Amino acid sequence: MSYLTEKLLEEKVFKDPVHGYVHVSDKLIWDLIATKEFQRLRRIHQLGTTSLTFHGAEHSRFNHSLGVYEIVRQIIDVTFANEPQLEPEERMVALCAALLHDLGHGPFSHAFEKVFGTDHEEYTQAIIIGNTEVSEVLSKVGEDFPLKVASIIKKNYPNQTLVKLISSQIDADRMDYLLRDAYYTGVSYGKFDLERILRVLRPSPDGNGVIVKYSGMHAVEDYIMSRYQMYQQVYFHPVSRSGEVLLWKILERAKKLYCAGYEFQVSPSQVLPFFVNEVSLKDYIVLDDIVLMYYFSIWQEEADPILSDLCGRFLNRRLLRYLNYDPKEDAELYAELKGLLEKADIDPSYYLVVDSSSDLPYDYYLPGVGSGKEPIKLLMGNGELRELSTESPVVEAIGRERRTDIKLYYPLDFIESGRVEPVVAERMISLIHAHSLKEK
Amino acid sequence: MSYLTEKLLEEKVFKDPVHGYVHVSDKLIWDLIATKEFQRLRRIHQLGTTSLTFHGAEHSRFNHSLGVYEIVRQIIDVTFANEPQLEPEERMVALCAALLHDLGHGPFSHAFEKVFGTDHEEYTQAIIIGNTEVSEVLSKVGEDFPLKVASIIKKNYPNQTLVKLISSQIDADRMDYLLRDAYYTGVSYGKFDLERILRVLRPSPDGNGVIVKYSGMHAVEDYIMSRYQMYQQVYFHPVSRSGEVLLWKILERAKKLYCAGYEFQVSPSQVLPFFVNEVSLKDYIVLDDIVLMYYFSIWQEEADPILSDLCGRFLNRRLLRYLNYDPKEDAELYAELKGLLEKADIDPSYYLVVDSSSDLPYDYYLPGVGSGKEPIKLLMGNGELRELSTESPVVEAIGRERRTDIKLYYPLDFIESGRVEPVVAERMISLIHAHSLKEK
Amino acid sequence: MSYLTEKLLEEKVFKDPVHGYVHVSDKLIWDLIATKEFQRLRRIHQLGTTSLTFHGAEHSRFNHSLGVYEIVRQIIDVTFANEPQLEPEERMVALCAALLHDLGHGPFSHAFEKVFGTDHEEYTQAIIIGNTEVSEVLSKVGEDFPLKVASIIKKNYPNQTLVKLISSQIDADRMDYLLRDAYYTGVSYGKFDLERILRVLRPSPDGNGVIVKYSGMHAVEDYIMSRYQMYQQVYFHPVSRSGEVLLWKILERAKKLYCAGYEFQVSPSQVLPFFVNEVSLKDYIVLDDIVLMYYFSIWQEEADPILSDLCGRFLNRRLLRYLNYDPKEDAELYAELKGLLEKADIDPSYYLVVDSSSDLPYDYYLPGVGSGKEPIKLLMGNGELRELSTESPVVEAIGRERRTDIKLYYPLDFIESGRVEPVVAERMISLIHAHSLKEK
Amino acid sequence: MSYLTEKLLEEKVFKDPVHGYVHVSDKLIWDLIATKEFQRLRRIHQLGTTSLTFHGAEHSRFNHSLGVYEIVRQIIDVTFANEPQLEPEERMVALCAALLHDLGHGPFSHAFEKVFGTDHEEYTQAIIIGNTEVSEVLSKVGEDFPLKVASIIKKNYPNQTLVKLISSQIDADRMDYLLRDAYYTGVSYGKFDLERILRVLRPSPDGNGVIVKYSGMHAVEDYIMSRYQMYQQVYFHPVSRSGEVLLWKILERAKKLYCAGYEFQVSPSQVLPFFVNEVSLKDYIVLDDIVLMYYFSIWQEEADPILSDLCGRFLNRRLLRYLNYDPKEDAELYAELKGLLEKADIDPSYYLVVDSSSDLPYDYYLPGVGSGKEPIKLLMGNGELRELSTESPVVEAIGRERRTDIKLYYPLDFIESGRVEPVVAERMISLIHAHSLKEK
Repeated sequence: MSYLTEKLLEEKVFKDPVHGYVHVSDKLIWDLIATKEFQRLRRIHQLGTTSLTFHGAEHSRFNHSLGVYEIVRQIIDVTFANEPQLEPEERMVALCAALLHDLGHGPFSHAFEKVFGTDHEEYTQAIIIGNTEVSEVLSKVGEDFPLKVASIIKKNYPNQTLVKLISSQIDADRMDYLLRDAYYTGVSYGKFDLERILRVLRPSPDGNGVIVKYSGMHAVEDYIMSRYQMYQQVYFHPVSRSGEVLLWKILERAKKLYCAGYEFQVSPSQVLPFFVNEVSLKDYIVLDDIVLMYYFSIWQEEADPILSDLCGRFLNRRLLRYLNYDPKEDAELYAELKGLLEKADIDPSYYLVVDSSSDLPYDYYLPGVGSGKEPIKLLMGNGELRELSTESPVVEAIGRERRTDIKLYYPLDFIESGRVEPVVAERMISLIHAHSLKEK
Repeated sequence: MSYLTEKLLEEKVFKDPVHGYVHVSDKLIWDLIATKEFQRLRRIHQLGTTSLTFHGAEHSRFNHSLGVYEIVRQIIDVTFANEPQLEPEERMVALCAALLHDLGHGPFSHAFEKVFGTDHEEYTQAIIIGNTEVSEVLSKVGEDFPLKVASIIKKNYPNQTLVKLISSQIDADRMDYLLRDAYYTGVSYGKFDLERILRVLRPSPDGNGVIVKYSGMHAVEDYIMSRYQMYQQVYFHPVSRSGEVLLWKILERAKKLYCAGYEFQVSPSQVLPFFVNEVSLKDYIVLDDIVLMYYFSIWQEEADPILSDLCGRFLNRRLLRYLNYDPKEDAELYAELKGLLEKADIDPSYYLVVDSSSDLPYDYYLPGVGSGKEPIKLLMGNGELRELSTESPVVEAIGRERRTDIKLYYPLDFIESGRVEPVVAERMISLIHAHSLKEK
Repeated sequence: MSYLTEKLLEEKVFKDPVHGYVHVSDKLIWDLIATKEFQRLRRIHQLGTTSLTFHGAEHSRFNHSLGVYEIVRQIIDVTFANEPQLEPEERMVALCAALLHDLGHGPFSHAFEKVFGTDHEEYTQAIIIGNTEVSEVLSKVGEDFPLKVASIIKKNYPNQTLVKLISSQIDADRMDYLLRDAYYTGVSYGKFDLERILRVLRPSPDGNGVIVKYSGMHAVEDYIMSRYQMYQQVYFHPVSRSGEVLLWKILERAKKLYCAGYEFQVSPSQVLPFFVNEVSLKDYIVLDDIVLMYYFSIWQEEADPILSDLCGRFLNRRLLRYLNYDPKEDAELYAELKGLLEKADIDPSYYLVVDSSSDLPYDYYLPGVGSGKEPIKLLMGNGELRELSTESPVVEAIGRERRTDIKLYYPLDFIESGRVEPVVAERMISLIHAHSLKEK
Repeated sequence: MSYLTEKLLEEKVFKDPVHGYVHVSDKLIWDLIATKEFQRLRRIHQLGTTSLTFHGAEHSRFNHSLGVYEIVRQIIDVTFANEPQLEPEERMVALCAALLHDLGHGPFSHAFEKVFGTDHEEYTQAIIIGNTEVSEVLSKVGEDFPLKVASIIKKNYPNQTLVKLISSQIDADRMDYLLRDAYYTGVSYGKFDLERILRVLRPSPDGNGVIVKYSGMHAVEDYIMSRYQMYQQVYFHPVSRSGEVLLWKILERAKKLYCAGYEFQVSPSQVLPFFVNEVSLKDYIVLDDIVLMYYFSIWQEEADPILSDLCGRFLNRRLLRYLNYDPKEDAELYAELKGLLEKADIDPSYYLVVDSSSDLPYDYYLPGVGSGKEPIKLLMGNGELRELSTESPVVEAIGRERRTDIKLYYPLDFIESGRVEPVVAERMISLIHAHSLKEK
């Protein structure tokens, strides 16, 4: 028996709060889970700063990755059991890609990528094909097997149905994270009937994705609504974003200091390659939440008051406050606050920050195909395919909704702390107060 | 201490799958639960024929009524604890009305009211103020106390906030039945964050209802979405409606037979008052699911073949099949099927039935006030009130959606059974087949 | 393809609150569900009088029967997938028996069987092999197929492993009812990890039952604990048993009246065969909760004051009260109460009733084999089999526990109502009070 | 209004997966949550190495601490609402102690305390009264308020009922962690009816603890069973303990190297005080999971092969394997394996490790009082108090059960890897194999 089809002596299971159990019977999958690159995902939180708002959400990408694998396994082995069978290799390419799809995430991806310009999808591919334990395991199937797995992530694997299973408007990735994030935060919004959706998925007849039987339309509507609610209530939560703002500014500041020749008390050796933009694959893999958090903790003692303050804020949850911000209407407010902060010797580039939810990697639903995410298609009784939002006014309304949420973050504690001259502080407080009255 | 404020020696609880526990500490509430009119609700199913589709949904109105009481109790005693306090009498009027609001439901209300023209809300009031154990208990508070409780149901109690707690777009009745029906059917759609909604409700400043703090908008959106899903997926389910159609036709047939002088083998004494439209309050209270179901079971043996067949169908779940029906486009199909059935000696008034979901007492959301159901108002940060759908495109889309679902029910088993001449049967099958091809 | 192995065009599912979905792909199973004998189970409550205590528990045996079928289906098709395969006929015999195992239950079985001496297991077999729709469907497989299915219920089917799947200390019947009854009552006690237990079950090497891999011992311990808790807290609840006592006494009284020549206002025709012990299969099948409840409701108007009172009590939940009763120590108390009731013209054979929990068809765990229920065996690492309680002190303690709970039921409301002479009433109250003080 | 009784303008809530919401209305509690010592608990995992077995269990002590606070808040403000009222100060002492009870936990407490001899309960007190933000906040109530809060932890606060709420056989700490750990691992074992237990708790009449109304006995039995199951299935799981063994050996090795003058490539400055046993409060607070994990990650690159290997094992989950071990019977096996490892140049003090579950800080139930944990007392109907296990055979059996689980951990991968001479490896494998055959 080849390694591709080798089974474990006995099926192994992982107890999982979302799916009950994650089932592994393929030796290859078992070996991939044991690699150090996959184990590293235990040290990357799934939801960056969300636990600052929802304290329950402390789960890792390891946790989520097993879930995505389990969903794809069920789709391939159960849902598609009566479809023309996949080749063993195709099946395994999909399972591996599902398991490994988040391998390239670094710590706090959103803020990190903003400052250092890295791209987690590219790193996922690099880890799959590079000089890694993962690649070594995959190569035991065949020399070009890692490339095949990577091409799912790159979205150019010939069987596009398998690509879409892992990345489309209704993919295993989203289905798992919605359920999982809802479970860990404890909110009720993210729940939908996964079992029913799995029953109504079908490979698209054109071999180019996954479609949904019309009888499952309402289950998919419910999934889109869950998505909408999770984004509105959890992912875009302004308090978590306040944590993101701090992260972004910490990294920006540290990089700037380094480039300006600042001498750190302890050299942040694992981060240096990123400061100078000379990052090897090994450098990348070494980074995880532990390393960054460790630096944040020692940077609290750094001489630079901005870096030290920002790190203390992040670790001890002394967040910036926020107000709703309209770039057009509120330009004057911004300018005046900026001036006042400067007068108080508080650097506005770090302490007066505009953050827009549209920067976040989430969307409720995009009916158009230009989005890079395949829209959801319904298989009608007569065999016709129709895009979901043409049949569902609710989904249409959600897809139409693009109200970007923009916040302006500011350091209320500084203003109130006596660090700012009373007359300046009073003016700032009064500006902020007047602005909040204007709002609905 | 007066009866109005008398407490039980120790708080009593009912274990409840939806709310954990239902708490009773008022002697009056305890005594009302023990009345025979309230105990009768154990013999009225909450969801009529839904258990023909969702077998889990076998719960009674007793079950639901305790739940509505519990929600109102929490709103009054917890949510509104910091509001200007209600008079003890106002509080108790609301709790009693919550507990008793479904008292006037008869068996299988929807079909029953259609045939006999009764109105459960009127009967609820009649039981509250009439010669009943319930009324006797209420009168111990004061002679006019039953009238006050009834006026909540009638919607003309002076404190309109309390009226709206029990009947409005976001009332305790709906909140309980959505959660409860979701629990018993086992579907995930009906879930929303009740605890959060209870936290953001406030009495309207104009004393005319309940409003929602803006911070709770998404929780209320989620509740509206749950409603939409439950109606689409559960309440309007065409298989349950097929059961409703049988009920309606059974009652219609029995009444018609009686009025035409037909002699029943066993006189259906408890139903006779309804056949002749001379119904006393006592006659009404005697009726419950047990009595009707008993008659259905013995009517299986009646000589009239239509009555006997319909009853057998209902009890043994041999339902009529259905097709989508558009009164304008499909008039011809209807006419031809009608003709063919008549030719086969199958009475189309009982076996070819058009049923529209808009006849059902459900709506997703009605933003307008003319609807008799107060729309939901948000309390904005600046004190302004805004109707929910002006702020939420999703709710707006749901409120706009009015696609009535119309089905045509027909007896496929008769057609296929040899009871119908082959050539006629073939024609019918081919008509039905062609129609289904036309559909999406 | 033979009827035995015929599949539906598309798998059908029933939404189930306990198992998510019940899956049916065999035509035979689908046809059995559609029979009128199986549909009749919708009209038999699973838990007789339990809903008088736990209002949520209004579910039927239809509901539970689908669940037992689903568990057996999973064991056969999934758990045992790697075992030497069952013959298609063996598989189907087991699935049919699982689905049909409760077919012979009558209304309120416990009290009914006590009064009329019927046996639901015998009736289950009779319906399976008799002149019924069920038998007709089964016979389409082969003439002797109904007998084979019945022999599972009779426990003499050659493959004893399949017998034990449906009746043993860890059978699909108990596993489903514990989970289901816990769900509907809303208590947390009945939950255990069904998925894990299903993973560790194996057919016994001696072909004589089901055994459990040692690694699953704690999961099975948890199941036994759930059982213990459910019996203690739900099934033996003295308030539900108070309802049972009323049922028992109603049936006893009605039978006695009839045998004594009493003339009922309306002849209770469907119950007469039981009064005279001349019951045909058809008579039996006609009976369900509806019929009995209907008679109870009209018997409220009967001239016999005992029958009328008991029926009113049952329907309106005016239950007898209870005290702990020790047949040895409390004989005197019993005698004196009896005398006092007689003095007050209240017939103690109906109103002073001793009820013992050991009469109920439940036990926590019986390690011995003489019990008719196979004990649970663990498969040790070295291949040895050991009885569960020899390995688990907790199970041993539960299996040892045989504290029978005996209650004495009495009509407190009569005593307090003025119906009883003050001096007699006072004496009774003081006896009862003194007894309760004596207790811990 | 004094700080002790100062309320927030509006009650704040934390969404919590276990309790729904955690409610905070006291300004003091809000301020304590914002301190850096409390925020530090976000960086200490609740369950050390359990997530190596149950990947879902990645939650922190921050999470759990809020839960313990919420349970105590409910007991004091709801359960005891009708008891003689607590003084505001007593109430607040209990709430603060509940919130802060885990403040002194260091990273991976179990292994850490074993190696360095620290005691988290002492550090909890030290943080409460020392030079910390927590102490500063508490002192705003009064100079001696920190001492009062600390005396709850020290168990000598005058009101012993409040002490027992936080530390006894049925305290808020255990109730929260059982429910929470069950939720995050996804197992069903830890669930019990918290709401019911909270209803039946009462302050002991002797002012010396909490007692349970007899009517709640079965709910408490269920809680003890949950505890038993969680310990057996989760806390004592040999795979998690394998992680603990690695941690213990890493810390032991690092300390030994340092004391022997080994030069680390990067000085582990935050751990040095522990190596030399000169630990200030500030040193202690700086330590958290982040710091230790960071060192483990860089120690992978250390020159010492043992330290480097052990750290790599821990981070990449290459665990030692285990076999059941009986110190008496298996002494010879141990000796021979030790000799063989030494022959293969594998230091047995790090790679052949005996671990006993009795070292873990868990017990199922201890009926005796000498245990330092007050046993559970039932309040009988006649006012008498009885120890739980005298009434419940199940609890008695659980309390009696003291089967310590001892494992011997060994490096299977080394043995199989070619690092060990074939003949030595073969002998080891054969010893291990023979041992496993001997077992049941």
